[in-house]
Amino acid sequence: MADTIKIGIIMGSQSDWPTMKEAADVLDALGVPFETRIVSAHRTPDRLWDYGKSAVERGLQVIIAGAGGAAHLPGMMASKTRVPVIGVPVQTKALSGVDSLYSILQMPRGFPVATMAIGAAGAANAGLMAAGILALQDADLAGRLDQWRSDLSASIPDVPSDDG
Amino acid sequence: MADTIKIGIIMGSQSDWPTMKEAADVLDALGVPFETRIVSAHRTPDRLWDYGKSAVERGLQVIIAGAGGAAHLPGMMASKTRVPVIGVPVQTKALSGVDSLYSILQMPRGFPVATMAIGAAGAANAGLMAAGILALQDADLAGRLDQWRSDLSASIPDVPSDDG
Amino acid sequence: MADTIKIGIIMGSQSDWPTMKEAADVLDALGVPFETRIVSAHRTPDRLWDYGKSAVERGLQVIIAGAGGAAHLPGMMASKTRVPVIGVPVQTKALSGVDSLYSILQMPRGFPVATMAIGAAGAANAGLMAAGILALQDADLAGRLDQWRSDLSASIPDVPSDDG
Amino acid sequence: MADTIKIGIIMGSQSDWPTMKEAADVLDALGVPFETRIVSAHRTPDRLWDYGKSAVERGLQVIIAGAGGAAHLPGMMASKTRVPVIGVPVQTKALSGVDSLYSILQMPRGFPVATMAIGAAGAANAGLMAAGILALQDADLAGRLDQWRSDLSASIPDVPSDDG
Amino acid sequence: MADTIKIGIIMGSQSDWPTMKEAADVLDALGVPFETRIVSAHRTPDRLWDYGKSAVERGLQVIIAGAGGAAHLPGMMASKTRVPVIGVPVQTKALSGVDSLYSILQMPRGFPVATMAIGAAGAANAGLMAAGILALQDADLAGRLDQWRSDLSASIPDVPSDDG
Amino acid sequence: MADTIKIGIIMGSQSDWPTMKEAADVLDALGVPFETRIVSAHRTPDRLWDYGKSAVERGLQVIIAGAGGAAHLPGMMASKTRVPVIGVPVQTKALSGVDSLYSILQMPRGFPVATMAIGAAGAANAGLMAAGILALQDADLAGRLDQWRSDLSASIPDVPSDDG
Amino acid sequence: MADTIKIGIIMGSQSDWPTMKEAADVLDALGVPFETRIVSAHRTPDRLWDYGKSAVERGLQVIIAGAGGAAHLPGMMASKTRVPVIGVPVQTKALSGVDSLYSILQMPRGFPVATMAIGAAGAANAGLMAAGILALQDADLAGRLDQWRSDLSASIPDVPSDDG
Amino acid sequence: MADTIKIGIIMGSQSDWPTMKEAADVLDALGVPFETRIVSAHRTPDRLWDYGKSAVERGLQVIIAGAGGAAHLPGMMASKTRVPVIGVPVQTKALSGVDSLYSILQMPRGFPVATMAIGAAGAANAGLMAAGILALQDADLAGRLDQWRSDLSASIPDVPSDDG
Repeated sequence: MADTIKIGIIMGSQSDWPTMKEAADVLDALGVPFETRIVSAHRTPDRLWDYGKSAVERGLQVIIAGAGGAAHLPGMMASKTRVPVIGVPVQTKALSGVDSLYSILQMPRGFPVATMAIGAAGAANAGLMAAGILALQDADLAGRLDQWRSDLSASIPDVPSDDG
Repeated sequence: MADTIKIGIIMGSQSDWPTMKEAADVLDALGVPFETRIVSAHRTPDRLWDYGKSAVERGLQVIIAGAGGAAHLPGMMASKTRVPVIGVPVQTKALSGVDSLYSILQMPRGFPVATMAIGAAGAANAGLMAAGILALQDADLAGRLDQWRSDLSASIPDVPSDDG
Repeated sequence: MADTIKIGIIMGSQSDWPTMKEAADVLDALGVPFETRIVSAHRTPDRLWDYGKSAVERGLQVIIAGAGGAAHLPGMMASKTRVPVIGVPVQTKALSGVDSLYSILQMPRGFPVATMAIGAAGAANAGLMAAGILALQDADLAGRLDQWRSDLSASIPDVPSDDG
Repeated sequence: MADTIKIGIIMGSQSDWPTMKEAADVLDALGVPFETRIVSAHRTPDRLWDYGKSAVERGLQVIIAGAGGAAHLPGMMASKTRVPVIGVPVQTKALSGVDSLYSILQMPRGFPVATMAIGAAGAANAGLMAAGILALQDADLAGRLDQWRSDLSASIPDVPSDDG
Repeated sequence: MADTIKIGIIMGSQSDWPTMKEAADVLDALGVPFETRIVSAHRTPDRLWDYGKSAVERGLQVIIAGAGGAAHLPGMMASKTRVPVIGVPVQTKALSGVDSLYSILQMPRGFPVATMAIGAAGAANAGLMAAGILALQDADLAGRLDQWRSDLSASIPDVPSDDG
Repeated sequence: MADTIKIGIIMGSQSDWPTMKEAADVLDALGVPFETRIVSAHRTPDRLWDYGKSAVERGLQVIIAGAGGAAHLPGMMASKTRVPVIGVPVQTKALSGVDSLYSILQMPRGFPVATMAIGAAGAANAGLMAAGILALQDADLAGRLDQWRSDLSASIPDVPSDDG
Repeated sequence: MADTIKIGIIMGSQSDWPTMKEAADVLDALGVPFETRIVSAHRTPDRLWDYGKSAVERGLQVIIAGAGGAAHLPGMMASKTRVPVIGVPVQTKALSGVDSLYSILQMPRGFPVATMAIGAAGAANAGLMAAGILALQDADLAGRLDQWRSDLSASIPDVPSDDG
Repeated sequence: MADTIKIGIIMGSQSDWPTMKEAADVLDALGVPFETRIVSAHRTPDRLWDYGKSAVERGLQVIIAGAGGAAHLPGMMASKTRVPVIGVPVQTKALSGVDSLYSILQMPRGFPVATMAIGAAGAANAGLMAAGILALQDADLAGRLDQWRSDLSASIPDVPSDDG
């Protein structure tokens, strides 16, 4: 069934959405359906628990989780499900997202989080990584992803422009 | 009942014990009973849930939580209970505990973790902070804590020694 | 006497007030009385001395201390009184508050400061941590704090919104 | 065919092997076949090119790439193939692997690298992440991964031990 | 032939041009011809390959390469040609160009990149360094470079001015 | 002769003046005469040489030197004269003045630079430190400095103000 | 009277002595008398108060203060006396002395601390800076300091040696 | 004349030699003659002046300068001569060479230093960069450098070895 949701984009708060929307936009461009949820590790821990516990049976194949500061959402989600979790460190005010990065990246042996670059580029890449994982089982998507990459390469001009 | 356990010292793994033992030693020196548990946020998340949910009814008044790397234990515990949580960033190999520190310290509005210095001095101070909180309701303990502080001050020599 | 002031919010300078006001606002929301003072470790050291020395007898149970740069106020206050001190690192211009953080956090064995996140979220959490400590002896406050936390959780929408 | 190699573990130099062996050990424990190669981005760039170009047709489904310092291998591999690339920042002498981390993590929009923690724990987690991706299409492996995770959780003692 | 292009200024994307233009401006001021190209290590890796492979035969004597984030362009170019490569770390949003710096600077034994300061001053200096290298074989250019340096020194006022 | 210039305020470029003016303002407030010069370590090295070599005979007693980036002025001046040198790290764009700080602070055994805080507060404090050194031989200045410090303390309000 | 003690070397704990002894050794080599004291800002705050308050009347002309971690001693001493304070950041375990550095360096407007390099070289330079300040009023010492500097320069060999 | 010295390897102290010897070894392997000198920016500033002033007339074509801490040697040399200067940041104790790096790298517009990686690999690469510059005018050396690079590539095994 082509429309089954296999990707969940979750984030710690509404304020992460402008960043995480980049993941959604990439998935839209690639024609990959997804769901979006706010799941706060600290404010809605039981929502996190339920989301993680039901992820396999609900058919999720990749979870993209964005958070900032003491960003526990991606790692706690990785603790609750074997569905691959991609983490996006959201940029923060005082520490520029290095706090988010370390909280997401430095997971102990046993619970990997596939960490992306800090901020919007990282969120877009989370969408591409998720698509790349689904493409392993979906030749059509693989083709669309190859095309997306080709188009990106073809869009690069040969010389820089003062009007750029 | 003087012997009721009001302080829980929890840690993410056995390897945190040499650090966290400093908290235990301080509490022993002050005559404050405590319990110790290994509660891994990622490897035993349900243990974390249960510990947090039952903390108030079990009579815990302070939880000292030590962890290293993507140190989610203190913050997740603070999410699950209003019992004050003191966090101890355990020193790590590559990032010297700055990863632990940021993961513990940078909690979002709503869920404070009282963060201590990185490593052993921080763990000892966690014990003292816990004792200071209990001393607000326990004049005997307040006296012992005052004495401990006086003894510490009195132990400082006036001049440095080459044999020191 | 319900209105006794048990919490002091102190700060190194007037310029810290926009940050520290977050602690005051949280305490107001929880119905916890407090006092505010400017106590500069360097410009008014004797004021610091007096505040620290009289804290116990004045009935203070928690001192929230915010400062920036070479932020000596929280640690020096912890040296002068066994009343628990919560430190708030105020964000700074060149070093983003990492200077404030290290000056507050890295206290030597004997004199803990319960350090919060850098900036406004840290100040708000200082208020919540103080309330959590008082709630150990005040069932009404414990109930209000539980309610505050429930309300916060309930305020989180399920899906992110483009209008957010 | 059960024994087809779907995972490649590549690294920039022989000196990365003690770190990257952790990924191999995890895959061995989970019964997942893999190949290992030294592919230096700078010393053997054409080998990198060939490896990347042939990855899809050779049936690789995940590439685990470890490197240290100006660690260009994971990102350049991600540029040459849509096969998901997991990056492992190897710890370095002067900069503790923060150089490796930033070189791997901060990829531009279009070419994600799933970055793991610095050093050995990150390498082990790369193996687990790769297995988790393959498990999406392999129920047997999913079962073994679930079991591995259960065993890990079950191995955690309840209280810390002085003999630990 | 005076007009042969001996210097290539390349950059990872159009967005690097405002920074890299400083190198071009310095070379213009010194009367040194150059070419400019966008060569993205990740989006146009084959363009990178071709540029590197043909650099010697095309008569290039210095390649100035600017990039930001996981800045692989300078190092990969150094891998493909023995023509001296000067790297310019472009400033970035979250990490201020420290990511660019580490990705360019920390090259392994065998493949040096002559790294300049982060941002616009670094780009200008890349132009001067390139000119200094060409000046070793070009007495006229050496004279112009000496003059440029003298003029710069002569332009420094003796006392600071409030109107400055 | 009361008006002899005993303090030189030097800086690497005109762009440092808005920062270094803070030192001048403090000295003006204390009635301490001074001279100001632009002395660029790199663009006017011979000016640096001459300034350093003649400092003792010209009667300078303190040199305040501000610079940013690879800030070599304070340290090179300390190499050329035994007149005490106070260094002010000027804030920079990419690295916030940490580059300036390390370049000034980390002097090898033999050539101290009295380093101040990054930026404007550091420059003001450089003026105060210089005045404190002169005050060791000038009772009038000592009195004015004591008064300045008293006035500063007296200016601190007791409670923070929303209108502050 | 030649033997009056004009320099005090103080430190936060006995463990700082191996570092601070470098200052003492330099002063011994220059024939400058000094006293040494342990003055802990946190453990013996009243000792700090007394030392600072009596510094001027006791004839101290420079105070060298070394401390590590949340290093409040130099700054608090600068708050209590106008005698110039030279601060030495002692190297620490987790944060390598960057915590000490920021706590000492980032003083607010009004209370300068002349900060030296982290660790032993900084302590030696504190001795030299103190001697340089005294030499402004002591031609004999100025001569000995000039000689010490000349000897240091003369000791530098012209070429490096494999036996070095 | 084949034996003319075109490369000077200079360093701030004897203690830098174990690092800088790597540059010498590479040049020896490539058959490029060089000289070695200790030139301390702070302890022998006049030696630095003389070396810089005479560099062009003595026929030097590249100066490799290594230094640690407040590493002013490379930048000051770049100020004194238009001969290209390659800087090597020597690793340091407290700050791991980040202090050396920033002091060398962050040169202002006008005076480039071609900065290499921190430590031994950077020193070796300085030798290669110097050879690459000379090779622009020396076809024999270009051939030897090409061969050196080919040999390096050929030395990389295809698979990692447990005996490595």
